[in-house]
Amino acid sequence: MYSVTVRGHMMIAHSLIGDVFGPAQRLHGATYIVDVEFRRPDLDADGIVIDIGRATGTVHSVLAELSYRNLDDEPAFAGRNTTTEVLARAVFDRVASAIARGDLGDGARAVESVRVTLHESHIAAASFDGSLRATSR
Amino acid sequence: MYSVTVRGHMMIAHSLIGDVFGPAQRLHGATYIVDVEFRRPDLDADGIVIDIGRATGTVHSVLAELSYRNLDDEPAFAGRNTTTEVLARAVFDRVASAIARGDLGDGARAVESVRVTLHESHIAAASFDGSLRATSR
Amino acid sequence: MYSVTVRGHMMIAHSLIGDVFGPAQRLHGATYIVDVEFRRPDLDADGIVIDIGRATGTVHSVLAELSYRNLDDEPAFAGRNTTTEVLARAVFDRVASAIARGDLGDGARAVESVRVTLHESHIAAASFDGSLRATSR
Amino acid sequence: MYSVTVRGHMMIAHSLIGDVFGPAQRLHGATYIVDVEFRRPDLDADGIVIDIGRATGTVHSVLAELSYRNLDDEPAFAGRNTTTEVLARAVFDRVASAIARGDLGDGARAVESVRVTLHESHIAAASFDGSLRATSR
Amino acid sequence: MYSVTVRGHMMIAHSLIGDVFGPAQRLHGATYIVDVEFRRPDLDADGIVIDIGRATGTVHSVLAELSYRNLDDEPAFAGRNTTTEVLARAVFDRVASAIARGDLGDGARAVESVRVTLHESHIAAASFDGSLRATSR
Amino acid sequence: MYSVTVRGHMMIAHSLIGDVFGPAQRLHGATYIVDVEFRRPDLDADGIVIDIGRATGTVHSVLAELSYRNLDDEPAFAGRNTTTEVLARAVFDRVASAIARGDLGDGARAVESVRVTLHESHIAAASFDGSLRATSR
Repeated sequence: MYSVTVRGHMMIAHSLIGDVFGPAQRLHGATYIVDVEFRRPDLDADGIVIDIGRATGTVHSVLAELSYRNLDDEPAFAGRNTTTEVLARAVFDRVASAIARGDLGDGARAVESVRVTLHESHIAAASFDGSLRATSR
Repeated sequence: MYSVTVRGHMMIAHSLIGDVFGPAQRLHGATYIVDVEFRRPDLDADGIVIDIGRATGTVHSVLAELSYRNLDDEPAFAGRNTTTEVLARAVFDRVASAIARGDLGDGARAVESVRVTLHESHIAAASFDGSLRATSR
Repeated sequence: MYSVTVRGHMMIAHSLIGDVFGPAQRLHGATYIVDVEFRRPDLDADGIVIDIGRATGTVHSVLAELSYRNLDDEPAFAGRNTTTEVLARAVFDRVASAIARGDLGDGARAVESVRVTLHESHIAAASFDGSLRATSR
Repeated sequence: MYSVTVRGHMMIAHSLIGDVFGPAQRLHGATYIVDVEFRRPDLDADGIVIDIGRATGTVHSVLAELSYRNLDDEPAFAGRNTTTEVLARAVFDRVASAIARGDLGDGARAVESVRVTLHESHIAAASFDGSLRATSR
Repeated sequence: MYSVTVRGHMMIAHSLIGDVFGPAQRLHGATYIVDVEFRRPDLDADGIVIDIGRATGTVHSVLAELSYRNLDDEPAFAGRNTTTEVLARAVFDRVASAIARGDLGDGARAVESVRVTLHESHIAAASFDGSLRATSR
Repeated sequence: MYSVTVRGHMMIAHSLIGDVFGPAQRLHGATYIVDVEFRRPDLDADGIVIDIGRATGTVHSVLAELSYRNLDDEPAFAGRNTTTEVLARAVFDRVASAIARGDLGDGARAVESVRVTLHESHIAAASFDGSLRATSR
């Protein structure tokens, strides 16, 4: 299996609901360093997994939609905790949609799975790793 | 699949038996930067894989039991080489036991697998990745 | 010159006032990975710059006072932008005060200067480096 | 599953053919920080995955064959783009051959799979992850 | 003293002349991870050292002029070895010129010194640290 | 001012004497990731601060003399605590002696100062920064 990983970041405010979150129930924020890994079993005719320029552009666009915002006010997350895990999934879903729409080119449709990792500090991270095939996610 | 990773470290002395270890047969030591990744297919009602506060506390407790010690004198490792690989497994076993005992809360029992990575320097690491289901480890 | 550096982090929400900040004028947030470096020309009788346990405790206390908060609501920063630079200075001032109060022990008073670096992402950081001598800061 | 990872690097010049590569169609170069992960389900009698000294030696030899060269002139890559993905596979194939030849010792033949990751910058990487069993690569 | 550091990178081909360079006398290449630190003793009215957006833009422009090129063919370096040290100085000079021209805004003229560090691998780096005052560089 | 930095590591056992060290009074160990920075105001005729091959060789030799040892048994440290600070100074002194002896070549005698940093974990480091001129260290 081949993979390509690109890195970006986003900076957000939010609060989390539930005793389990302790002081993170207060309005605070985070920088998430975001790694998006694209995987496929074979390379295309150019010898690549994906057009890394387009992939980087897509990742930056997805992160820009979330960054410099208070996620408590974002309709997309209404009624849900925007934990690092939930945000990893949100980035995954948006990247998967971009691939399905063809934003990363036709070749990108050969990508079989994607892993999104959000590093919230030097000592904690969360990820979502999923198939792009509807039947096996 | 979702995952959450927390980082800690331990500092130990030990020696290794066997020609394959060269100068590491002498009493020496290591700092291990330890990453523990917890995985499960779905999030709980709070939107998390695991209570990260409890997970961090458990990892720190497990590492504190090993740290600032000469592992050559620890009964738990009598007759065995405390290689980075063996120590990765030891941390895994102790974290798995803590989950089974309920130390990380009832929700943590939904964790399906754990990966423990010990970075012994900037150029070498070892890991153990195992299921928490007895039948598939 | 000798130095010892300890690392911690804080997670905050804030907004910044001024056109220069672009989208960061909106309420958002950041994780700051914080390095505090303590310097002195000679070591004490134990062979150290500072009691690293106490230094780490002080740094964590200072960061805990700022973390998991919306800095827009903190009286300490009323009327000021909480840029990374300003926060680096705020951490410096609080660490300097702790040293002056003796929180890090009498030996810590031999520390001549401190550098505080806040990493706000993998591609940006700010720092404040100052003397602990009133005349030369 | 156990694993051991060793890190090395190589520095090469090359150019890439195809519009998708944009400015990288020009002759340029890269440092690749290379992580090679060796995996097997059980440890040997010494408590290790692989002789890390030999593994490091093999990885360095493989990288030395590629490093400080213009890959456009290397017969091994004639007619092919030396993308990061292709180079990850080339390192994999050479490490796999070295294991098969016994260069890493008889024990190394128990290694079931290898993952090679090339970090081309702080924001991009590619990898090839393959089985050493002919039937399942 | 306050500072702000921004990171970028460039990927180049080159060869070096002189026995001291060993295999690096052959045409090869490098990725340089580039940190540019801007320093000044006081903050401006916005609470910043420099407009980080403009600083990042300038650093990226300077690196783009050098990246994806064979430096052996660049007139700017004719007759000179493009060692990591020389390239650190070249980036410094170009950033200093941009500040002097006002590309980073009038406020940036208060920057007193700049440090440019090029990381050529995980185990080697070079830097140039200089004043922006003609008399004291 | 120009600088070149090379990285190596060492793995040692030791114990520390004094209540301030808490659990580190027990026999334990550490991996130190070691950065040695060489500085001089001008480059030599080849465009370098120092022959990086020789510098790396010297640093590795110095670290090999200390590594894979119990420092409690080393005569060089008899009666002294081998704190990270003391070890940073010990590495500095040995590198300075190597330069003075000419081990790094005649050109290396132009190096004016050296900084040695030992990273003992992801959250703690110590350094010694000194002049190579007897009068100003």
